[in-house]
Amino acid sequence: MPQLRKDPITSRWIIVNVENPKAANDFIHEPLSRSSKTCPFCPGNEHMTPPEIVAYGRKPAPKGVVGPWQVRVIPNKFPALRIEENPEKKALGVYDKIGGFGAHEVIIEGPDHEKEISDLPLDHVEMILTAYRDRCVDLKKDPRFKSILIFKNYGEAAGASLEHPHSQLIALPIVPSRVTGEMKGASRHHEYTERCLFCDILAQEATDNKLLIYENHDFMVLSPFASRFPFETWILPRRHEAGFDSMPATEIPALALALKTTLAKIKKALNNPPYNFMIHTLPIGGKETESFHWHIEIIPNLTQVAGFELGTGFYVNPTPPEVAASILKLQE
Amino acid sequence: MPQLRKDPITSRWIIVNVENPKAANDFIHEPLSRSSKTCPFCPGNEHMTPPEIVAYGRKPAPKGVVGPWQVRVIPNKFPALRIEENPEKKALGVYDKIGGFGAHEVIIEGPDHEKEISDLPLDHVEMILTAYRDRCVDLKKDPRFKSILIFKNYGEAAGASLEHPHSQLIALPIVPSRVTGEMKGASRHHEYTERCLFCDILAQEATDNKLLIYENHDFMVLSPFASRFPFETWILPRRHEAGFDSMPATEIPALALALKTTLAKIKKALNNPPYNFMIHTLPIGGKETESFHWHIEIIPNLTQVAGFELGTGFYVNPTPPEVAASILKLQE
Repeated sequence: MPQLRKDPITSRWIIVNVENPKAANDFIHEPLSRSSKTCPFCPGNEHMTPPEIVAYGRKPAPKGVVGPWQVRVIPNKFPALRIEENPEKKALGVYDKIGGFGAHEVIIEGPDHEKEISDLPLDHVEMILTAYRDRCVDLKKDPRFKSILIFKNYGEAAGASLEHPHSQLIALPIVPSRVTGEMKGASRHHEYTERCLFCDILAQEATDNKLLIYENHDFMVLSPFASRFPFETWILPRRHEAGFDSMPATEIPALALALKTTLAKIKKALNNPPYNFMIHTLPIGGKETESFHWHIEIIPNLTQVAGFELGTGFYVNPTPPEVAASILKLQE
Repeated sequence: MPQLRKDPITSRWIIVNVENPKAANDFIHEPLSRSSKTCPFCPGNEHMTPPEIVAYGRKPAPKGVVGPWQVRVIPNKFPALRIEENPEKKALGVYDKIGGFGAHEVIIEGPDHEKEISDLPLDHVEMILTAYRDRCVDLKKDPRFKSILIFKNYGEAAGASLEHPHSQLIALPIVPSRVTGEMKGASRHHEYTERCLFCDILAQEATDNKLLIYENHDFMVLSPFASRFPFETWILPRRHEAGFDSMPATEIPALALALKTTLAKIKKALNNPPYNFMIHTLPIGGKETESFHWHIEIIPNLTQVAGFELGTGFYVNPTPPEVAASILKLQE
């Protein structure tokens, strides 16, 4: 049974695997599966995954045969959290814990084992983003969930355990500390100015232009001023919107273009680096609709993050964001 | 000139290298120096480092010759921050920045290129800890500093750029977010209970005993209940004390024993893993002397920390701390 535990000092929640704990000798490197025969995400191997939640672009097929699909959503076979657990809070002396309740899904981004988002046609990327949005809308109906995280680990060094292009979704009975922290900062700015901090940043960059990497009708892509990591990149909607799942369908093509273009620029400039991206969105039922502004954070995995950074929350970034922006801007 | 920048959303400060920025092609792996001929920290190569700040255990030597030493403190040759910079705060529209003012020192832990803390005699480890403490006491005299971080990166994967055993000290004109976060949590508990949260944890573990790894007269070593990382380990003084530099000299031998023993246990159980440790101590001039409690956090580098964790502040730990504690406890 997985378990959620709260650090009494920092109020940060973590997920602990108490069911199949990794012991001292279990931290062994296993290479990623590169063969489509053994890859559970490749077409033809659908029986190797838990039962499908939803598929997009499915073609009809004879009875007993899985029809071809473009995007496929399945439960994670090795979930960090389980929907069957009880999200009841319990005290353990000075500590707090919750049963490992949650949903952990995998979005298989396409049938092709080799094609990443930057290689796919735009309408396919739109289908992936639609899947992200649909799953958020669906999971929000369960009142026990407090927040939903969508993220992608690309490359082994960035934490991917399977090579076939995929992203993940975790729905949680709590709000992670980073999200709370962002909301607090944005609320503070809003209380003081009655404006959205993210909108203010976008307005400043539209004039200043030093940190801007790419823009289209609906989205802006920039290097954040206080980037923690070299070539950290954010994609933000121009129009104020707190929740990713409130994005109108009409903006999905522009987001697909912004995401594909940005990932292609990073791939080209940095020689196909491992990376992570994640969607920061308003927690479910969050009241901060005026001050929070959803966005995607992309973090190429270029430096060894030392315990110093992890222990202090204090980052040393060797590449100023204006340098990163000027490099990424030029990639075509 | 290095620069400190504040993220307007999370209020987190970062250091940006605007002087020698790393561009796209600069993230190339350079192996650590393994030869004592080229190692700037080995005896005989003292001229390769910036001028010494202080040395411990120095023996007399003829004029013009550097006498043998046991522990040596020098300024970092490639500092993240500089003492000559102006710590003036400036606004840049919606952003904040400070000149890269600070001190960045290196504590060379011994003359032997191969001997780590776990291999050194106890009185030598005491000398290292005394150097840590003395540097804190000295740097606190400069009223421009707000906090001091002492940390060690061991192994390339943990961010070490030189093999010769060394630790680092950074004195900052701001307080890092992680330290602020810990102080807030501890203050909240103190307001409510009028007790120190860390003392409460120690009292609970002294009875419960499930997370305890090692203890001696003055220190307890444990796996924190909500460990972010597998085999994360904390060393805490039994006696309430907010600041590391307020530790009486009489407790240094017990800390040396606790640190050496703990690092030896980690080395044995996990096959000499890369690790980081850092000392969490009350910021300079901090008023939270009753609620904060200094401690050392040791984080073995066993898993790939994905952007997911970095982006959310939400960690998935594959090894429950009670399992880690039971394994580490048994190592001799």
